[in-house]
Amino acid sequence: MDIAALFDRLRAASLDPPGVTRASYGPAEQAAHDIMAKAARDIGMQVSVDAIGTLRMLLPGTDAALPPVCIGSHLDAVPHGGNYDGAAGVVLGVAAAAALSDAPRRRGLLVLGIRAEEMCWFPRNYLGSQALFGLLSPDAPDTLTRADTGRSLAAHMAELGFDAAPIRARQALLTPSEIHCFIEPHIEQGPVLVAENLPVAMVTGIRGSRRYPRASATGRHAHAGAVPRAYRADAAMAGIALIAALEARWHALEGQGADLVCTVGILSTDPAHHAATKIPGALRFSLDIRSEDAALLDEMDAWLHAEAARIGAARGVMIDLGPGSHAAPARMDPALVAALEDAARATATPHRQMASGAGHDCATFAQMGVPSAMLFLRNDHGSHNPDEALDMADAEAGLRVLVHALRGLLA
Amino acid sequence: MDIAALFDRLRAASLDPPGVTRASYGPAEQAAHDIMAKAARDIGMQVSVDAIGTLRMLLPGTDAALPPVCIGSHLDAVPHGGNYDGAAGVVLGVAAAAALSDAPRRRGLLVLGIRAEEMCWFPRNYLGSQALFGLLSPDAPDTLTRADTGRSLAAHMAELGFDAAPIRARQALLTPSEIHCFIEPHIEQGPVLVAENLPVAMVTGIRGSRRYPRASATGRHAHAGAVPRAYRADAAMAGIALIAALEARWHALEGQGADLVCTVGILSTDPAHHAATKIPGALRFSLDIRSEDAALLDEMDAWLHAEAARIGAARGVMIDLGPGSHAAPARMDPALVAALEDAARATATPHRQMASGAGHDCATFAQMGVPSAMLFLRNDHGSHNPDEALDMADAEAGLRVLVHALRGLLA
Repeated sequence: MDIAALFDRLRAASLDPPGVTRASYGPAEQAAHDIMAKAARDIGMQVSVDAIGTLRMLLPGTDAALPPVCIGSHLDAVPHGGNYDGAAGVVLGVAAAAALSDAPRRRGLLVLGIRAEEMCWFPRNYLGSQALFGLLSPDAPDTLTRADTGRSLAAHMAELGFDAAPIRARQALLTPSEIHCFIEPHIEQGPVLVAENLPVAMVTGIRGSRRYPRASATGRHAHAGAVPRAYRADAAMAGIALIAALEARWHALEGQGADLVCTVGILSTDPAHHAATKIPGALRFSLDIRSEDAALLDEMDAWLHAEAARIGAARGVMIDLGPGSHAAPARMDPALVAALEDAARATATPHRQMASGAGHDCATFAQMGVPSAMLFLRNDHGSHNPDEALDMADAEAGLRVLVHALRGLLA
Repeated sequence: MDIAALFDRLRAASLDPPGVTRASYGPAEQAAHDIMAKAARDIGMQVSVDAIGTLRMLLPGTDAALPPVCIGSHLDAVPHGGNYDGAAGVVLGVAAAAALSDAPRRRGLLVLGIRAEEMCWFPRNYLGSQALFGLLSPDAPDTLTRADTGRSLAAHMAELGFDAAPIRARQALLTPSEIHCFIEPHIEQGPVLVAENLPVAMVTGIRGSRRYPRASATGRHAHAGAVPRAYRADAAMAGIALIAALEARWHALEGQGADLVCTVGILSTDPAHHAATKIPGALRFSLDIRSEDAALLDEMDAWLHAEAARIGAARGVMIDLGPGSHAAPARMDPALVAALEDAARATATPHRQMASGAGHDCATFAQMGVPSAMLFLRNDHGSHNPDEALDMADAEAGLRVLVHALRGLLA
């Protein structure tokens, strides 16, 4: 199968210079589903679409009693994003089916084109895979609105001929027992594989997070020259002290081998009041702390609250972390990770293990108890931007590893 | 003299709720000049106005060969500011003249109503006093524009019947030899006198500054979860490291007795690109470092550049302090400070010495070699806001100190 040509067709159908745009439950996402469905039919897969629009492409096995191995990812993309985030997993799934169509197999291979993973469209993590397992709240179709249109999930689903009723009924359209395991191939969204000159990686876990997007420090605005330190309630210096302490702790824990990344993506004094010659009375900031290790996240969270209280009290500043969102880490299945690693060794494909810092649909499958794994593909320039760059040679290398692993899993 | 009534007249003529507004070379500043001129005439002072609009109110002495003692401050006010910043110095000067009109004196007492001190109107420090001494650049009348109107200084001067020609000619309308010394009474713009329950303070010096209003850190935007620490070029963390190091150094130096205040008034990731889940590639911040000690300012400046370079290099982030503005500290005349302190002791007025963190016209007089001093008056809630609060009892206390000191200086 000519995967480069398949990527080209996906790109052409969703071009939005610079880059591609495939809104969740929008026409360009649908076009990507149609392209993948045609490619699957062309190689003889059985193609169906469920009530919520999930594309299911099956290469049947000989023993219908055995649940199929499942491969999948999403086909939506952020505005002016790259062509590979999500789509690479679906393309590699179908390409693997093409490579294995004549291989002896007892199990089938089910490739999923999942809907609506990119949270920039609807504000819900893993919307499509959560809906697939009946995990969304019943009001989600009506309360979730798409960022670009302001219209509801239900309205966008209806527009494409899909039905929100299963979501409202918390109905699972896929149950864990229906599939043997789940593998999500995906481009790496960080720089590690490029830097280390490796085409693929086996993901050991998907980092969970503690996130405080709207933390704040509140002190008192005052004259920069006229107020001695002892009389200040400097919101910026208090926030900075907290962030500097967080970074110091991060470095120390990392030195002890912990998996941890910390990010302050948003940091701002109040544009309506700040001035170079004014002690700031207000600071807004975000905190994003991620780790594969659930216990470490709990510990960091407790430390963060205590440190914020301590620094605030010492400086006469009220530090409020604001509403937090917590995502549990997802553990990958060690046997499945080992199977992928064995396949890499057998195909002489240079590789390493690494954590996934970004969330993926695979986390939903792991959460549901499905043995799950991810195969990362080297990709330059990160993701969610038009410069995403998956070399076709690396896509082929990933495909070789996947196909080799599947031969064993399907047998 | 009823100083409360005089302040009330000033307030009524410039009311702009909340607070008062007296734009430099605007109608409300002019109204304040008119009110002070009338008050001075009413007590028999000789009143004149120079070509650039400086109000000169003279209580003559008996020996015309001796230069007069000079008291003064400005009469403009920030938008929706308080009634006392600036005006208190002129009111106390005229009230002192009233109290001393029958006192034996060889020297005269010259009270100045200075123009255009608040930099929010025209972007030039101490515009009015600098013009008085012929220190402005010749193009200032045409290149400086007022923030609220966009019109030039020359146009606003002409509108009130004044003449920018002396400024263009760098002509001094006052020379240092024409006055014996300069005293500027002024409200304290910080919280120290309120906190320490003291009505007045003698200013030992006006802090100079090193200011970088548009410093920046430039790294690389990247995914908050997917990029390990070693691969980050986190602009926010780099900027925070620099600011935290600055604060640590400040605390250490202050512990050794140094006079120093440091402020980061503006701090912001890029609103067009930042997100809670994105490593920030850009940070903008301001730095304002002030001290009475010129050598310490030089040392801090050198340290700041070295530390910015060190932290930037260690983190793969470019830290650029941007254009800086440097203001030299102004030293007050020790004999004049002592005379004011003696007067406070003699009148049993509780007092202390302190640095002025804010700039004042007095800095121009000190720069010109005029023996200069400031008398701070207790004031609650800071300045440049409608809540400025000078208790009339404290104004009277300051007046007693001033009058007592002047008896000696005029004799």
